Amino acid sequence: MRNAIFKHRSIRRYKPTPIPADVLRDILEAASRASTCGNMQLYSLIVTQSQELREKLAPCHFNQPMVTEAPCVVTVCADVHRFSMWCDQRDAKPAYDNFAWFVNAATDALLAAQNLVIEAETHGLGVCYLGTTLYTAAEIAKILALPKGVMPLTTVVVGYPAEEPPLTDRLPLEAVVHYENYTEYTAAEIDELWAEREESEQMKRIVAENGEENLAQVFTRHRYRAEDNLAISRSYFELLKRQGFFNN
Amino acid sequence: MRNAIFKHRSIRRYKPTPIPADVLRDILEAASRASTCGNMQLYSLIVTQSQELREKLAPCHFNQPMVTEAPCVVTVCADVHRFSMWCDQRDAKPAYDNFAWFVNAATDALLAAQNLVIEAETHGLGVCYLGTTLYTAAEIAKILALPKGVMPLTTVVVGYPAEEPPLTDRLPLEAVVHYENYTEYTAAEIDELWAEREESEQMKRIVAENGEENLAQVFTRHRYRAEDNLAISRSYFELLKRQGFFNN
Repeated sequence: MRNAIFKHRSIRRYKPTPIPADVLRDILEAASRASTCGNMQLYSLIVTQSQELREKLAPCHFNQPMVTEAPCVVTVCADVHRFSMWCDQRDAKPAYDNFAWFVNAATDALLAAQNLVIEAETHGLGVCYLGTTLYTAAEIAKILALPKGVMPLTTVVVGYPAEEPPLTDRLPLEAVVHYENYTEYTAAEIDELWAEREESEQMKRIVAENGEENLAQVFTRHRYRAEDNLAISRSYFELLKRQGFFNN
Repeated sequence: MRNAIFKHRSIRRYKPTPIPADVLRDILEAASRASTCGNMQLYSLIVTQSQELREKLAPCHFNQPMVTEAPCVVTVCADVHRFSMWCDQRDAKPAYDNFAWFVNAATDALLAAQNLVIEAETHGLGVCYLGTTLYTAAEIAKILALPKGVMPLTTVVVGYPAEEPPLTDRLPLEAVVHYENYTEYTAAEIDELWAEREESEQMKRIVAENGEENLAQVFTRHRYRAEDNLAISRSYFELLKRQGFFNN
């Protein structure tokens, strides 16, 4: 266990080798063993392997080559539709079309996704989560024919790695862990937590390439800019309402 | 790996044995290895071990005994506060106080939580996710002193199991997996997917105990009722706004 979790790195280059059917089934079964709210399994995993459909999805992920190069693209969705259908067919009135159940269903979906990822890596497969899913969720929903009650959350590409990237650095563990209750950071602590990363040659190069003074400006002015964040927030929330997750 | 993921069951009775410090550190490090949006690590794990504080949290989880019996309660939070502080200190204007970044941060947090869970189980520990976190999120935020930019999502109790429950049944894998795109269910398929569960003696007993005709009515009329779902949706969304995650 130590190995797969502690060896995780995002893989962005893939061999075309398909995933054997029994391996794919195993990683999907692993996903289904994750904890789920009330054992309701409020998620769907859309496993796209056809070249044609992956090519249709590619622009939704800014044409990152891995979407068409990796043999398998899994779109991870919150899904209250299936459970609500079951209720409707049994004279039971479902009321899962609201915000709390978006969060419950998203939780189910993401825990399942991470099980899938760990089991895939145990089999020697590589994975990469695609955050672009939020940017273009409405288009993804259309391509994958998602009905009301189903909302795309993230995407995982899966395949055999054609690269061996180093482990990504992380902030010191004390950055993300609080003991007993939340302990507010001092300004000096923030500086200290980011110091090693900011001093790395790789990060200094990225700052220089972007013509900025520091790494934080690379994030706020280039990678994740206010205008994009707002546009994505609005379009994603609109889709949330349209998919019937906000009848509060 | 097969073992921990495929042997997962929620544990609701715990021995008082504390978690050794090195084991706790290992499972927290496992959490920190999960994929994270832009390597921003937009989450915080609040590790509560003090008896006093767990007793304060217990009512937020409807006084389920495991909150005070298990030695460790981890409140899993979306957190854009730490990253935004870092930006603020570097003349970089953060704009992560909106809905897209709630979803990004929640994704980071939940992937980390599931790594923590799997690594804990590898060490022979048991866990249980507490969905009650959404019901009483505002009170939890107060008890744990969560600042603006931090939102509780779920809670994981961790400790040595004092019970050995059987594996929970799941719907057939084809219920949650769609190949290529979403395939709408027929009414007959829905019946078939739930048939085994509905016919089990345990579920028939639960239906009878609740005085209902079928299992779906147990869910909609007892476990997760419309009025509660709406109230939780409203209070959780109010907190989301108050914590500064909805400046779209």
